[in-house]
Amino acid sequence: MKEILFELDPKLPASLQAQLREKVVNAILSRALQPGERLPSSRSLSKHLKVARNTVTIAYQALADDGYLTPKARSGYVVNEDAPVNPLGFMENTREPIEKIDWQHRIRNNSDNLRVIRKPLNWREYEFPFVYGQADFKLFSHSEWRDCTRQALGARDFGVLAGDFGYNDDPMLVNYITSHSLPQRGIYKVPEHVLVTLGAQNALYLVGELLIRPDTTVGIENPCYPDIRNIVTNRTEKIEYFDVDEGGMVLDEEKLAKCDVIFVTPSHQCPTTATMPIERRKKLMEMAEIHDFVIIEDDYEFEMNFLAPPSPALKSMDKKARVIYIGSFSKSLFPGLRLGYLAGPDSFIEEARRVRHLIYRHPPGHSQRTAAYFMALGHYSSQMRKLKKKYAERHTTMLTALEENGLSDSTAAKFGGTSFWIKGPKKLNSNILAENLVEKSVLIEPVSAFFDAENPPRNYFRIAYSSIANEKITEGIERIAEAIHEIT
Amino acid sequence: MKEILFELDPKLPASLQAQLREKVVNAILSRALQPGERLPSSRSLSKHLKVARNTVTIAYQALADDGYLTPKARSGYVVNEDAPVNPLGFMENTREPIEKIDWQHRIRNNSDNLRVIRKPLNWREYEFPFVYGQADFKLFSHSEWRDCTRQALGARDFGVLAGDFGYNDDPMLVNYITSHSLPQRGIYKVPEHVLVTLGAQNALYLVGELLIRPDTTVGIENPCYPDIRNIVTNRTEKIEYFDVDEGGMVLDEEKLAKCDVIFVTPSHQCPTTATMPIERRKKLMEMAEIHDFVIIEDDYEFEMNFLAPPSPALKSMDKKARVIYIGSFSKSLFPGLRLGYLAGPDSFIEEARRVRHLIYRHPPGHSQRTAAYFMALGHYSSQMRKLKKKYAERHTTMLTALEENGLSDSTAAKFGGTSFWIKGPKKLNSNILAENLVEKSVLIEPVSAFFDAENPPRNYFRIAYSSIANEKITEGIERIAEAIHEIT
Repeated sequence: MKEILFELDPKLPASLQAQLREKVVNAILSRALQPGERLPSSRSLSKHLKVARNTVTIAYQALADDGYLTPKARSGYVVNEDAPVNPLGFMENTREPIEKIDWQHRIRNNSDNLRVIRKPLNWREYEFPFVYGQADFKLFSHSEWRDCTRQALGARDFGVLAGDFGYNDDPMLVNYITSHSLPQRGIYKVPEHVLVTLGAQNALYLVGELLIRPDTTVGIENPCYPDIRNIVTNRTEKIEYFDVDEGGMVLDEEKLAKCDVIFVTPSHQCPTTATMPIERRKKLMEMAEIHDFVIIEDDYEFEMNFLAPPSPALKSMDKKARVIYIGSFSKSLFPGLRLGYLAGPDSFIEEARRVRHLIYRHPPGHSQRTAAYFMALGHYSSQMRKLKKKYAERHTTMLTALEENGLSDSTAAKFGGTSFWIKGPKKLNSNILAENLVEKSVLIEPVSAFFDAENPPRNYFRIAYSSIANEKITEGIERIAEAIHEIT
Repeated sequence: MKEILFELDPKLPASLQAQLREKVVNAILSRALQPGERLPSSRSLSKHLKVARNTVTIAYQALADDGYLTPKARSGYVVNEDAPVNPLGFMENTREPIEKIDWQHRIRNNSDNLRVIRKPLNWREYEFPFVYGQADFKLFSHSEWRDCTRQALGARDFGVLAGDFGYNDDPMLVNYITSHSLPQRGIYKVPEHVLVTLGAQNALYLVGELLIRPDTTVGIENPCYPDIRNIVTNRTEKIEYFDVDEGGMVLDEEKLAKCDVIFVTPSHQCPTTATMPIERRKKLMEMAEIHDFVIIEDDYEFEMNFLAPPSPALKSMDKKARVIYIGSFSKSLFPGLRLGYLAGPDSFIEEARRVRHLIYRHPPGHSQRTAAYFMALGHYSSQMRKLKKKYAERHTTMLTALEENGLSDSTAAKFGGTSFWIKGPKKLNSNILAENLVEKSVLIEPVSAFFDAENPPRNYFRIAYSSIANEKITEGIERIAEAIHEIT
């Protein structure tokens, strides 16, 4: 018999019997006791542990009921052959079983058709990262953010923030959104019209979940933000693709007439950064009225307006509550925070609230409160000023370098932003360009994911200046121009 | 002409022209300039501002292009009648327009049929809150959590955590789950088999999204966790309801044979807290093999095992990777954190990763890293010990009080947990009971949401002891017994 030096502590809150059961389970899991191995008799163990024999007998019986032990002749017990054990060869045993069931055909919606922008997570290791949507932490008011975290974790706030909010959000954050963020866009709402989401991505998903049935006709821009297309193509085959020119989405009335829902990025079109002129906005709103469709306005990055104030949001012209507005804090704070919001009519927001509850309940309370403090204490405004100043510098450097290297930018956002959409020579394949540039320590975003699958033009690409230092820009653009030259 | 005291600052990074445009926009939004009001002439304003007249002319022209201004005779401008303005009567103007479009018929999946547990958010104001799933913050290691937050916000971690993780999770948290959480349940996995989710709720949603088509037959327990039923009924009408007895889900082979997917809570059935005996678990695994269904094992609260070690997880008996395992940190840390996980075969986890990315990308990085530090530094284990000690005390108090008041608990979890499922007298309607108890400052969870809609028994209810102080329990139970007496 193996000697097991169980020691029980009568001062612990768990009963001696419970303690004994836990020790045996741990011994089995850790293979101190092997499957098939005999346990000490209840008589000898009770003597050793100085407990009543009955304590041991009852503990053994309970362990047998739970499948850790198997009873044997003469009231002895052995470790169950089926008991879970910690495998000896860790890596070997954590491999999937060889004879496993086929999961692929059980999965409802195989995602192989989704085309996404593959963002290298090690972008910081590149010398010239013209990547989009990753914040530059040198520009972030880090110590102020830490102060706000501390405040949100204080005893007064924590009890509430750590709880289950149910259908609700942090009223302090919602209050900032209704009193500061939305009025900057000419939108005036009460808290019932706003839902906090896990970034704009999540807001788009909720809209898709609520509004798109297999018989819904949806209009999207082409090119567009790839995950809008993924959300839509997962739900309907009835899709109308709208061309994009230097004024953003081109309003083809024949197509518009067929649509139930339109996704649009009027402030600066994603990815081309084109700004839709006011006349076209008015026209879009008129069309919506005539053809009775609803509009989903993704107003990402409107705060990066260092060149000019952004044009009024479509939502600010919305007379019959036809527009659902989506805002994001991923670009203005940081993407890992995962905070954005939906603003729309109460009947829509109420349903969105229920669906959100079913999907994940609510964005974490402490994230919401920390952001709310950051805003309420004025750090957010200073952060925006700092970002705008830096982005304005980089924008100037980019423009100069692009010009000097003969790269044209046809559709730049009128108010600012963080990126350029570049049209290369006709023969250019930007997928190959992106691959070649990796070797030159340059990251760009090729065109492929942005366009509808059939025959996308290949000579476009996006370069962002939100994560690259000003002094790196000129050389980076030179390397891009050089690489284009090498393959065209 | 209204006197507008614009002041421009040549030291600001924005050009004078951009500054001027911003000032005009703000004046319009804030109604300092009213729609239709005439702007100062470019000549007088340029003089007043001491800038070139051209600066003013170009700014005005740009504002007209954006729809803020309308050109008038003799190169003057007035504020556009359609320009967005801050409404004067704030509450009045933020009301939805009277003539708005009908959203209800545009919403795909009206959620009126969802039955949820309405959790009063002000539960702390009740003297006897027998509410489930809201942590007692007096028991939480708050200052240790703050230390970990500080550490996760340090310069070394923050740059990475604040970024977009794409498809990935914090490797530190995943490492803890594979090396500590899962092995406690006899489950051995590598990081590729684990996906971090926004709580168990979100894990269940992802499973539903991946595995349930309209033609999928799904088996659920009756009664069950209401949001499992909501997730399933939203996706298929082919549902098999399984009765629950003191051994958890009753294995009706005829029904099992029809199922493609089974949702089950074997450790302690939700809401009855019954523990499934090992023999029935083996039987369930055999049935899965014979009838080729997959199993979703929701193992919530396994760490609250103060009476005995929990029985081995189904996943630990899983020879052919048929089981998807769901764990949660909502009960062991706090629900507002929104962290849980999925463990399963790599082909399933990979698809879950893509779907998660489409829905919201990933749980916030700083939440993941803070939890990982809390675990790695040993605070989590001490927290569990503290909770188990307190819950054990409360459990004893509950048992005594229930017995003294003649309330029977038929199916208590063998290893612990945080709640009791009470069977009242036959005539009892627990919905009325719950309403009456509110006036006595007592919160309980009536039966209604847990059962399938047709003829649910009404004489059951759940009382949890995770949020009520030990010294309040006895009086609370007395008030419940009294209230039952009054209506039966």
